[in-house]
Amino acid sequence: MTETFVIAQGGGPTAVINQTLAGAVIEARQRYPGARVLGARHGVRGIRDGNFVDLSGLTEQELRLLAATPSAALGSTRDKPDAAYCETILKGLRQAAATAFIYIGGNDTAGTQQILADAAGSDIAFVHAPKTIDNDLVENDHTPGFISAADFIAGAFVGVDLDFRALPGIYVGIVMGRHAGFLTTAAAAWQPDEESGPHLVYVPERAFSAAHFIEDVRAVVSRYGRCIVAMSEGVTAQDGRSVVENLVPSDRLERDAHGNVRLSGGDLGMAIEQALKDGLPKVRARVDTFGYLPRGNVNTISPTDAREAFEAGAFAVEAAARGGGSVALQYVGGATSPRLVPLASVAGKTRHLPDNFLVPEGNRISAECRAYLQRLVPKRFELAKPFV
Amino acid sequence: MTETFVIAQGGGPTAVINQTLAGAVIEARQRYPGARVLGARHGVRGIRDGNFVDLSGLTEQELRLLAATPSAALGSTRDKPDAAYCETILKGLRQAAATAFIYIGGNDTAGTQQILADAAGSDIAFVHAPKTIDNDLVENDHTPGFISAADFIAGAFVGVDLDFRALPGIYVGIVMGRHAGFLTTAAAAWQPDEESGPHLVYVPERAFSAAHFIEDVRAVVSRYGRCIVAMSEGVTAQDGRSVVENLVPSDRLERDAHGNVRLSGGDLGMAIEQALKDGLPKVRARVDTFGYLPRGNVNTISPTDAREAFEAGAFAVEAAARGGGSVALQYVGGATSPRLVPLASVAGKTRHLPDNFLVPEGNRISAECRAYLQRLVPKRFELAKPFV
Repeated sequence: MTETFVIAQGGGPTAVINQTLAGAVIEARQRYPGARVLGARHGVRGIRDGNFVDLSGLTEQELRLLAATPSAALGSTRDKPDAAYCETILKGLRQAAATAFIYIGGNDTAGTQQILADAAGSDIAFVHAPKTIDNDLVENDHTPGFISAADFIAGAFVGVDLDFRALPGIYVGIVMGRHAGFLTTAAAAWQPDEESGPHLVYVPERAFSAAHFIEDVRAVVSRYGRCIVAMSEGVTAQDGRSVVENLVPSDRLERDAHGNVRLSGGDLGMAIEQALKDGLPKVRARVDTFGYLPRGNVNTISPTDAREAFEAGAFAVEAAARGGGSVALQYVGGATSPRLVPLASVAGKTRHLPDNFLVPEGNRISAECRAYLQRLVPKRFELAKPFV
Repeated sequence: MTETFVIAQGGGPTAVINQTLAGAVIEARQRYPGARVLGARHGVRGIRDGNFVDLSGLTEQELRLLAATPSAALGSTRDKPDAAYCETILKGLRQAAATAFIYIGGNDTAGTQQILADAAGSDIAFVHAPKTIDNDLVENDHTPGFISAADFIAGAFVGVDLDFRALPGIYVGIVMGRHAGFLTTAAAAWQPDEESGPHLVYVPERAFSAAHFIEDVRAVVSRYGRCIVAMSEGVTAQDGRSVVENLVPSDRLERDAHGNVRLSGGDLGMAIEQALKDGLPKVRARVDTFGYLPRGNVNTISPTDAREAFEAGAFAVEAAARGGGSVALQYVGGATSPRLVPLASVAGKTRHLPDNFLVPEGNRISAECRAYLQRLVPKRFELAKPFV
């Protein structure tokens, strides 16, 4: 029987998600000469609609170029299939004579694969290959896409700290991250010493209080004459809701098919800036919301991230041969390699920052977090200490 | 007599402004063995206050590390000296026994040098060395700092276009630039074809109309299914004032010592997003304000920009020997090199995008602009064409 792999990409793109796609295609063709490899456009929507790209005939050179291109080349989707939608996906997979379906994405994507696997029986292998800049998949030491985005964040905060030494003031950079603060902590990855920014880090894992925030900033400004802050877009209020949900009138809140409130707008930044103006009226304060800039940025593609993403894709083909499951990047014996874990252990679960990755006050990273970042996001520049 | 160079940095930092500083120090010491080189902290403020760093004894290695470090290592200032302030600066320069004062900055900085030169007589040579990400200095083909910032912008828009192919919608990226749109046009520097973003470009040189903007976006969305927009923070309303000035209540407007209204906040982005929601309610729309991320970013330091900035600093020492003036990067016979021009020809003047750098409709770059960008900001990546 001819092996037929269907591959799709789901959720927010990353800088290296096409590495995983290319890795799967190359491995599938090597392992099963003559195999068909079909790419579904816009995730499961392409399977439902029979909208496929035949990837079988691409040259190695074309696939390497594809791999080096950021963001989901097949298109992505935020569709969250219900039972009826899953039926149409299964029908689409069977019409395509799929023997395996590899879906590259985050924990929502893993959840979709689990629903499909449960409904399908054993004639198709369902594989989830990991991808997310949020680094929030359980079972994974880290996820493909995280390191490249972290390089962007780390470099941005190096530049901003130097900028706000030259022209002092308060700076807040707001970073993507709904429930997990990993990417926000990357702001401190290249911090050379305690006196350099970011001086304060706020993540969704700790309740955020505007009053405490202002006092934290005041203390840093009085000590260093400036204050650099990294803040997750998903910072959470005392009531457990995101600060954005509390800020934006409910008729203006946007939600996706997964029920997630849109956090990437300017509302949090405007509110933080106003809080700083009110609380510290004499100090110049600037807030930037990084938005979409970190996640698929062509200027900060990490070679390590690219390699690991490619390997995760190649391993997904091995995982299909073993009946399916979720590919997880694990760190064992000083090296990262992909392993196979059950879909159920990843699906719909969120990995949070370990408790000990923050200092007890919750507003700076700990030595444990710094060691993790130094392993994954090593500094790529030697810089001089400024004279101010 | 011992030569004594005083060097300072003014205005917004760039990724390569310390190259210019290091170039001046190295050249001064080579040309005048035993010369003293003093760096003034925070621009002319450091001269007024006698707050100097002695740069004479730094090793070549220390200076090379300094050169590679973004943002003004001496600190910067936005002070705009009046006559009395200029007197204190001259007094400070004479107390330091300065024979030359090299001030690295934009057109405001050149203006300060001209006032000082007029007041001082001929015992001190006043030199302006160019620096600005805005690329808005007359007499210059381009300015040190521009190319690195342009690399950031060009790469950002490549990533965003791919992102919004994967998950379609409207994206607006707001880019620094008060009166000149050069940096905003760099969004199109690596655009592979017309179908790729940015599809629309709005700069301060053309009157901005929200109604026309919405119709422009609507047309692109209906053609390509998405729309990527690059917009200058300084876009100008029909009445000649910046759109931000018209949006923000006057009691909330911030102004610097030069009378410039602060444009870098989120107000424009929020207003643009609301206009898109109102005008195209069914299309997902996202707006990012790039803010401080492009200007001193350690991840996008261009080697060309670094070299040219260094050469401008070295040439500033030659300019001092010739009695002072403004260093200008000129493009002659297929090569860029620094030339000496009078301070008066640069001081306080703004170079705008040439008329022919935009198409007649004013909302896209022209072939002339593209040729200029391809010369200065050549593409650094080969990428695949996505399947969507």
